[in-house]
Amino acid sequence: MPELRKDPIVGRWVIIATERVRRPSDFPRRQPAPPVPSCPLCPGHEGETPPEVLAYRDGPDAAADGPGWRVRVVPNKFPALRVEPELERRGHGVYDLMNGVGAHELIIESPDHARGIAELAPPAVADVLRAYRERILDLQRDGRFRSVLVFKNHGAEAGATLAHPHSQVIATPVVPIAVADELHGARAYHDYRERCLFCDIVQQESAERVRIVAQNDRMVAFAPFASRFPYELWVLPRRHAAAFEDTGDADILEFGAGLATVLGALRDVLDDPPYNLVLHSAPFGAGESPSYHWHFEILPKLVGLAGFELGSGFHINSVPPEDAARTLRERVPP
Amino acid sequence: MPELRKDPIVGRWVIIATERVRRPSDFPRRQPAPPVPSCPLCPGHEGETPPEVLAYRDGPDAAADGPGWRVRVVPNKFPALRVEPELERRGHGVYDLMNGVGAHELIIESPDHARGIAELAPPAVADVLRAYRERILDLQRDGRFRSVLVFKNHGAEAGATLAHPHSQVIATPVVPIAVADELHGARAYHDYRERCLFCDIVQQESAERVRIVAQNDRMVAFAPFASRFPYELWVLPRRHAAAFEDTGDADILEFGAGLATVLGALRDVLDDPPYNLVLHSAPFGAGESPSYHWHFEILPKLVGLAGFELGSGFHINSVPPEDAARTLRERVPP
Repeated sequence: MPELRKDPIVGRWVIIATERVRRPSDFPRRQPAPPVPSCPLCPGHEGETPPEVLAYRDGPDAAADGPGWRVRVVPNKFPALRVEPELERRGHGVYDLMNGVGAHELIIESPDHARGIAELAPPAVADVLRAYRERILDLQRDGRFRSVLVFKNHGAEAGATLAHPHSQVIATPVVPIAVADELHGARAYHDYRERCLFCDIVQQESAERVRIVAQNDRMVAFAPFASRFPYELWVLPRRHAAAFEDTGDADILEFGAGLATVLGALRDVLDDPPYNLVLHSAPFGAGESPSYHWHFEILPKLVGLAGFELGSGFHINSVPPEDAARTLRERVPP
Repeated sequence: MPELRKDPIVGRWVIIATERVRRPSDFPRRQPAPPVPSCPLCPGHEGETPPEVLAYRDGPDAAADGPGWRVRVVPNKFPALRVEPELERRGHGVYDLMNGVGAHELIIESPDHARGIAELAPPAVADVLRAYRERILDLQRDGRFRSVLVFKNHGAEAGATLAHPHSQVIATPVVPIAVADELHGARAYHDYRERCLFCDIVQQESAERVRIVAQNDRMVAFAPFASRFPYELWVLPRRHAAAFEDTGDADILEFGAGLATVLGALRDVLDDPPYNLVLHSAPFGAGESPSYHWHFEILPKLVGLAGFELGSGFHINSVPPEDAARTLRERVPP
């Protein structure tokens, strides 16, 4: 019997089609990336990207835009939005528009072409998350931006055009609707209960344990109750915090280790599937919110979206999250 | 310079990336469907589907579940939701769920394996739309359903698993979030202006003509101002009506002719691209709404959704709707 489950945050219903249960091996495999004769993100090719805006290097005398970096951040050569002098909002009849002011950067996760967050040691993962934090804090100083989205496309099917492991940062002058819907749902819950909805979810998941994949002192990873996609995962800080950029170094280290563990389990169970990783964090100015709680969403790209999903916002998921969590849990080192 | 445009109905911002303009020939082509030795939706194979719930036949003595039909509706053999005796809603801690009560049917658009809405003559298109209407009216009598979504997946990339042209009907005990968001946005506009937002859009589009693709006495087809996808199109009835199922036969004939024209132009310009066609109509009981206005959305599947789109609800569209409309308009017979 299929089941309808409601996402408690945005109110989106999902059909869990328990009768069409699929095993991990039933999904298509990720296309291996074609070998790139000269990867523009590899060390030694720093001149092929725009000049770096941030890099972590070991030697105190290492020069910018040369090799020797552990993490490197560069503007996107083909940005979706651009840093322009003026933000102009205007109306046109019933319509509203503004010029495409924004920032679009690449965070190169490691000098190694074959190692991203899931493959790196905890201190190197912490470097990547620290780079996220540092870029968010810097972009926040630009008064035109209201929000930053950090995300990662892994595999061509998930939208990656470069195989070298990298994340992306897009700063926008508006709050993305997906984050706005979460803020709205979380605020409504807080208005009524005076508690954070995400904290309550963490508590219920920790008590029930059926959807938990991994946890440590700082983080909890679980398959959400109303998972839209097979093997969808959320990774939350255990303690309440609305804005990712307020996370301290010790927390970043332990959180990052947990995140890498979960991504490694996903890679092992589904044979390195394509996925999107997305950081949802409070918009600028809402960092102290008692109702919002930052988190990562991991969205494996194992099935396409068809007309029903696109047209209704209703998802049909053929893998119950309890099954996905059980399978992944078995691959998490104790 | 990219442009940020806001969908006036749900408030979703879209990045129109005017600097990455793509020509129609830049998109991948639809994979031709593999030949099916024995199509279960073709005439002569009626025994391979569940018994029909509706069919239009010419002869008065034609038997059900035999050949001779023009349009045939059957329950989906692999339904996402099922007609069950009882609808049970319940809570579980912070979560809400219900059993998967619903209906899921296939509307076989023609006996011809190679001809769907875009290829049929106006009376045959009208038959398909009449079948939509008749099924909605029938499902409405089941008090457990609150909404019906009619949609069509064209091409494997858009989710079609059978090549024979068919649409689908899913009746749900909840209002899909995409429709709920539209209802909400349209109601807010109506509260303020006391006019229907969709009617205002039709008026502005008809006056500006830059995004119009086709129109006749009953319908207007245009590329929406904040198109999420390259070549996205909306097709609306010119006169205000909240519920599709209230459409009379004369209107259905002319509306259907316009819809087929637009789908034909899309097929010709983009070499038969994969697409989803979705009918958005008022939920049951809201048929007389002064603020909602039923419409079809045509969502071509020319590009995948990457992490940014999935994570933010923000779309990046590389084809300005004005360009898409101009290209399509040239292929519409006068």
